[in-house]
Amino acid sequence: MLTVDIHTHILPRELPRWADRFGYGGFVELAHDRPGCARMMIDGRSFREVGENCWSAARRVEECDAAGVRVQVLSTVPVMFSYWSRPEHGHEVARFLNDDIAETVRKHRKRFVGLGTLPLQAPDLAVRELDRCVRELGLRGVQIGSHVNDWNLNAEALFPVFRRAAELGAAVFVHPWDMLGQKELQQYWMQWLVGMPAETTRAIVSLIFGGVLEKLPGLRVAFAHGGGSFPATIGRIEQGFRCRPDLCAIDNAVNPRDYLRRITVDALVHDPLALQLLLDQMGSDRVALGTDYPFPLGEERPGALIRSLRLPRPVEEDLFFRTACTWLGVAPEQFE
Amino acid sequence: MLTVDIHTHILPRELPRWADRFGYGGFVELAHDRPGCARMMIDGRSFREVGENCWSAARRVEECDAAGVRVQVLSTVPVMFSYWSRPEHGHEVARFLNDDIAETVRKHRKRFVGLGTLPLQAPDLAVRELDRCVRELGLRGVQIGSHVNDWNLNAEALFPVFRRAAELGAAVFVHPWDMLGQKELQQYWMQWLVGMPAETTRAIVSLIFGGVLEKLPGLRVAFAHGGGSFPATIGRIEQGFRCRPDLCAIDNAVNPRDYLRRITVDALVHDPLALQLLLDQMGSDRVALGTDYPFPLGEERPGALIRSLRLPRPVEEDLFFRTACTWLGVAPEQFE
Repeated sequence: MLTVDIHTHILPRELPRWADRFGYGGFVELAHDRPGCARMMIDGRSFREVGENCWSAARRVEECDAAGVRVQVLSTVPVMFSYWSRPEHGHEVARFLNDDIAETVRKHRKRFVGLGTLPLQAPDLAVRELDRCVRELGLRGVQIGSHVNDWNLNAEALFPVFRRAAELGAAVFVHPWDMLGQKELQQYWMQWLVGMPAETTRAIVSLIFGGVLEKLPGLRVAFAHGGGSFPATIGRIEQGFRCRPDLCAIDNAVNPRDYLRRITVDALVHDPLALQLLLDQMGSDRVALGTDYPFPLGEERPGALIRSLRLPRPVEEDLFFRTACTWLGVAPEQFE
Repeated sequence: MLTVDIHTHILPRELPRWADRFGYGGFVELAHDRPGCARMMIDGRSFREVGENCWSAARRVEECDAAGVRVQVLSTVPVMFSYWSRPEHGHEVARFLNDDIAETVRKHRKRFVGLGTLPLQAPDLAVRELDRCVRELGLRGVQIGSHVNDWNLNAEALFPVFRRAAELGAAVFVHPWDMLGQKELQQYWMQWLVGMPAETTRAIVSLIFGGVLEKLPGLRVAFAHGGGSFPATIGRIEQGFRCRPDLCAIDNAVNPRDYLRRITVDALVHDPLALQLLLDQMGSDRVALGTDYPFPLGEERPGALIRSLRLPRPVEEDLFFRTACTWLGVAPEQFE
């Protein structure tokens, strides 16, 4: 069966020394200390160790072959978003990363689909880069953060970016980053375990209550990690909408529950009951394999959770490739 | 069938003017502007409007009779916690509120069970007040916040309080408050809809990874709103525990999944699939009716969601009273 993994991250093998070039810090550098291993460094501090499969297309293809994955959707690592940087610098970072992903995709058209990143701190530049990603680089869409500095995703300033994505038919993948409650979630990796699902929910709720999804019916948006806690807390969110429309329905009068059938999520929930909830709540045509490859919080054996549910073949097909292809706007046949 | 609602809030009819007495602001005052309606005020700003059923026991009993609820577990409104205040003042506020709840319970022993509040900013005073709640006032336990100022619930300073609760057999109800990400969640009531489920998850994860539940096997803790996003994101939390024990398992080596069978949650999820997930994930002996009465984000018709699932009689009994009685440490017969 065709297998498309919509949630994987990739880095270029080498990163420019942006901090030196731009004259201020905060940018990621990649320190190749020893073969097959590099450290992502920010201002001299080690942020994360990554292996060769984080930058080597050849290595990724090998691992995909071994795992039975035909296609990976490539996106950068969220810490690369650099929304906090000066617009022209964020633009340059995005262009560099997008060129790299496009190059990788060009060499392996049947194995990779690319998503770009955008300098969302400057929506006009983001629209230009989005155009370039789709029209020049052949990327199928973009990955964006769950918020952009002080803006939630419903910020008016960001709307032109979503509108352009809808016009271009570009897929949008929303990934949590820069988690709310960072200070409170220092221990036990809680930023990743508690903060990320809340971040994603914040993004979904902002796009719904802000009316972005309503105004752009053609926009195709997918969310990481099974949509965070949104599918499990939709009852509470709907109750809020019902009992306090003065707070919730000020920009969009449509019941938030309706959007369970409008958004897409990956299946990365690490729990059979939670995955079943996604299917029951959203439908299998709204859930797609996503593994967070090559990171440890991901699914080590891609598709193992989905297979553990022993779903009927057409449902499995949805999860393994059909939902992904619909969201990406590609025909499954293009990978044959 | 006996029906026990473990999640309801109550206020005294009148509150002292604590701000005047203590010489600084932040405390709640109750302004009775017109019959049957009052405004909770903080430093002159209106925080929330409440009706007579928020303070009148008689009115509550009437509404319970109409709704088919035999017993309400009473706890204060979380904004009353006052953990931010000076220890002796927090102690005085807690004593006042606890005396009031105890008085209400004394007058209606078959209809109400009381939970106290503690000045957790001063754990020694909190232990004293906990003793008084259980031994002198006849309360069955306490309601606490999902964190206490800069402490998560695993803070060493708080451990003596949990240890004493376990020794006394006092039930602990954890309610989200003072939500993380407040700044980011200003719009669309997101503090309540997104922040609260994350707060509760933060509390559960802190108690688990911090080893509090492990060190105190007799401690009975229940969490509001179906345990926030914990039951739906347990897969992710477990995956974190597995792949990064250096971050997650530093204070407790037990798999977080095991605690699904150790904690209790209320059934307040406003969604049949989400409630079914709780039952499948935790077991019906870990889920109890809770309505958030008398607030609008609660369940307007107590038990309607549970009944909508058409569960076998023994499972319904768990949800309507047996889980609640086990958690409270009371015999169902005492309400006959």
